[in-house]
Amino acid sequence: MAMVDVSKKPEVFREATATGTIKLKTETIRLINQRKIAKGDTLYTAKIAGILAAKETSILIPLCHPLPLTNVEVEIRVTDKGTVQVTSTVKAKAQTGIEMEALVAAAVSLLTIWDMVKQYEKDAEGQYPLTVIENIRVAKKTKEGVSSERKRKKAQG
Amino acid sequence: MAMVDVSKKPEVFREATATGTIKLKTETIRLINQRKIAKGDTLYTAKIAGILAAKETSILIPLCHPLPLTNVEVEIRVTDKGTVQVTSTVKAKAQTGIEMEALVAAAVSLLTIWDMVKQYEKDAEGQYPLTVIENIRVAKKTKEGVSSERKRKKAQG
Amino acid sequence: MAMVDVSKKPEVFREATATGTIKLKTETIRLINQRKIAKGDTLYTAKIAGILAAKETSILIPLCHPLPLTNVEVEIRVTDKGTVQVTSTVKAKAQTGIEMEALVAAAVSLLTIWDMVKQYEKDAEGQYPLTVIENIRVAKKTKEGVSSERKRKKAQG
Amino acid sequence: MAMVDVSKKPEVFREATATGTIKLKTETIRLINQRKIAKGDTLYTAKIAGILAAKETSILIPLCHPLPLTNVEVEIRVTDKGTVQVTSTVKAKAQTGIEMEALVAAAVSLLTIWDMVKQYEKDAEGQYPLTVIENIRVAKKTKEGVSSERKRKKAQG
Amino acid sequence: MAMVDVSKKPEVFREATATGTIKLKTETIRLINQRKIAKGDTLYTAKIAGILAAKETSILIPLCHPLPLTNVEVEIRVTDKGTVQVTSTVKAKAQTGIEMEALVAAAVSLLTIWDMVKQYEKDAEGQYPLTVIENIRVAKKTKEGVSSERKRKKAQG
Amino acid sequence: MAMVDVSKKPEVFREATATGTIKLKTETIRLINQRKIAKGDTLYTAKIAGILAAKETSILIPLCHPLPLTNVEVEIRVTDKGTVQVTSTVKAKAQTGIEMEALVAAAVSLLTIWDMVKQYEKDAEGQYPLTVIENIRVAKKTKEGVSSERKRKKAQG
Repeated sequence: MAMVDVSKKPEVFREATATGTIKLKTETIRLINQRKIAKGDTLYTAKIAGILAAKETSILIPLCHPLPLTNVEVEIRVTDKGTVQVTSTVKAKAQTGIEMEALVAAAVSLLTIWDMVKQYEKDAEGQYPLTVIENIRVAKKTKEGVSSERKRKKAQG
Repeated sequence: MAMVDVSKKPEVFREATATGTIKLKTETIRLINQRKIAKGDTLYTAKIAGILAAKETSILIPLCHPLPLTNVEVEIRVTDKGTVQVTSTVKAKAQTGIEMEALVAAAVSLLTIWDMVKQYEKDAEGQYPLTVIENIRVAKKTKEGVSSERKRKKAQG
Repeated sequence: MAMVDVSKKPEVFREATATGTIKLKTETIRLINQRKIAKGDTLYTAKIAGILAAKETSILIPLCHPLPLTNVEVEIRVTDKGTVQVTSTVKAKAQTGIEMEALVAAAVSLLTIWDMVKQYEKDAEGQYPLTVIENIRVAKKTKEGVSSERKRKKAQG
Repeated sequence: MAMVDVSKKPEVFREATATGTIKLKTETIRLINQRKIAKGDTLYTAKIAGILAAKETSILIPLCHPLPLTNVEVEIRVTDKGTVQVTSTVKAKAQTGIEMEALVAAAVSLLTIWDMVKQYEKDAEGQYPLTVIENIRVAKKTKEGVSSERKRKKAQG
Repeated sequence: MAMVDVSKKPEVFREATATGTIKLKTETIRLINQRKIAKGDTLYTAKIAGILAAKETSILIPLCHPLPLTNVEVEIRVTDKGTVQVTSTVKAKAQTGIEMEALVAAAVSLLTIWDMVKQYEKDAEGQYPLTVIENIRVAKKTKEGVSSERKRKKAQG
Repeated sequence: MAMVDVSKKPEVFREATATGTIKLKTETIRLINQRKIAKGDTLYTAKIAGILAAKETSILIPLCHPLPLTNVEVEIRVTDKGTVQVTSTVKAKAQTGIEMEALVAAAVSLLTIWDMVKQYEKDAEGQYPLTVIENIRVAKKTKEGVSSERKRKKAQG
């Protein structure tokens, strides 16, 4: 068992985007939209938690390399399907991929949303019959000289 | 915005279980089962990452209280549907619920599985067309004097 | 050199409040009030940073004990003197005082405000001629059986 | 809300210095000067705490980038005005400014001084009528090719 | 694999002491004794590092429980055998033993001594032919109602 | 006191290897070899703990620089002398040596082994008469342009 040795790989500009959703009660969604969640601004808190978590990825995921992130961005929107969708994007010039950082940001944002709305999601027995985090994926990875090159060529047609 | 003030709540023995799954390629599942994943023992690494993360919950989730966990356990099994399922259970005598700790453990275990098998899941363009983390839920919460009392009564008939 | 040995002290309910201010340009204050700071919601971000930092006090301040905080609250308001004032309150049942936790929360909230408005505070040479954090104090400490007892008696007059 | 995207900015050698003071009782100052503070060497402990905190800046301040500091130095001196003054200097080759790292080092050093001398600063009611942290500022920021260039030109006259 | 479940164990006052040594060059020992190590006060820095590390034990050692330490003390002395000896003592009222906290404090103190004197210990090729950390042990563990009871009885004769 | 200022040093590819041993009871060694330790896979857990700790070196050792490790590897084997030997190797392109990272990895791996086998090592009084961590050393340091150059020349002989 070991980290992947990336010592000889070149530093390349990279970008990765991850997404995920949390399904909440209709009533909870309404309270979020009206900014009436008692614990605070749910989506804003979740964004900050996601950004901070991205920076701790190499402590959370045992074989991840510490990477000098140059940007982390988390966007969150309430969909019309009764879910809240998180989209996180991270950037770095690095010797290895940064999709784990994007995934960690998305996951921790989603967990933070759960924490912020706990009181509205619990039933009389203190259980969560409906609440569920779903569909955490890597939406896109690009790497200077690969995907982004390709995109530029297409754009230039 | 503020943490919930639990200063006046009694300390009660609590237990929470969370679950979640990650969908992987059939080939990756086979390699996990045969313990042939190059980066190491995928499931074992994921268990440790989950246990460690549970202990960092109050740093990751902004409004969570620091809680003195007396146990964290993470179980992982490969299902016959091409997914790996994580089940995390945490225990504490605490003034507030510990479901976030269980959820954090499950989520970080699942993310660690992703990290361990990245090379097998990526396609030729470096994307992850199939890999997805799903169905992160709280399976059960109990609290001394509530659920467990109830259970005892049922057991005594 | 050593931590103070609190092993034999009783656990007592405690509360501590700290305050501090940051002086900003009139223009920056206006942008905060209008929620037009480009990096995000300055005061909300500062509140979360303060709450998280309170929970890391025993890691930041070498001889502090790890304490089980039951509440952390950070309030921030723009004063009419061109400053932003942070008030942090922490609570715990603990064997030693929790004023350091309140002070750390206040200080990190103030530092976060600085970080959020950097671009508006810098002059043409990249310096900060005006910005200054001031007046970080412990506003009040109470301890069950001491201050709060006293207060109750006064109230009963 | 988002971190500033510094992906396209060049790495430049940077240096930042922050200062701040803590006002203490005359008696406490005397004990510090005579190295008689019971908890240990106040100024030395504060220096170490400041250096360690600088390295945790991106965890404490939500939108700060993780930066590869090449030096952190904290100097502390007792002034003749009954205050202790902290001066922290950090250096890095980085894509963005490092003044937050210097400010965090100064603030945590000052907080650590408070923690070391608590017992001498409290009054009979356990309050801190005098103790106050003041005047946390960025004393100077330089950036290769800007301030330092300018200085060199002046020096060459 | 799992943490040991200590949920049902009583909270008992505990104390643990660990020791360890580092062998250094005679010349380095002389510089430590004369407080001439260029990087700073070697022994004091090591003490603080050990105390801080004890508080992070449950993050460093995967299956350790987070424990509310009520005291950590690190003593360091230069022996007449050309070694520096670290003795760390930790205390807590806890449901499980705290020897790992004492061992972590001792080990990190010893590693910090190494870091402080690196330049004097390296040979011309940058290697460390002599430097070695040895003999990290648990010197003593006591638990209210067990060892300490026994000691009291002996004392009472 | 200060970190060593490495701002002007060139980034050079570096590698460092540290080793250390823990002496255990014959019976414990047998249980490790048969993978019958109740708490889990001792050696694997220790490897992960060591890798994670290497990444936290600059937080644990006060004057260490944060370094972008490109690889960490921990190997552990049971020797025929009743000890378990840990060998950790770290790599980075950095402005300063990375032996502290290797030493931290080795030390935390050894401490984790202790934690995993505690129950088998304790005697009837809860003491550890035999268990001891020994011989933590830097086995080798290389630096592009120095040691490795030299080695290459020798190889070309």
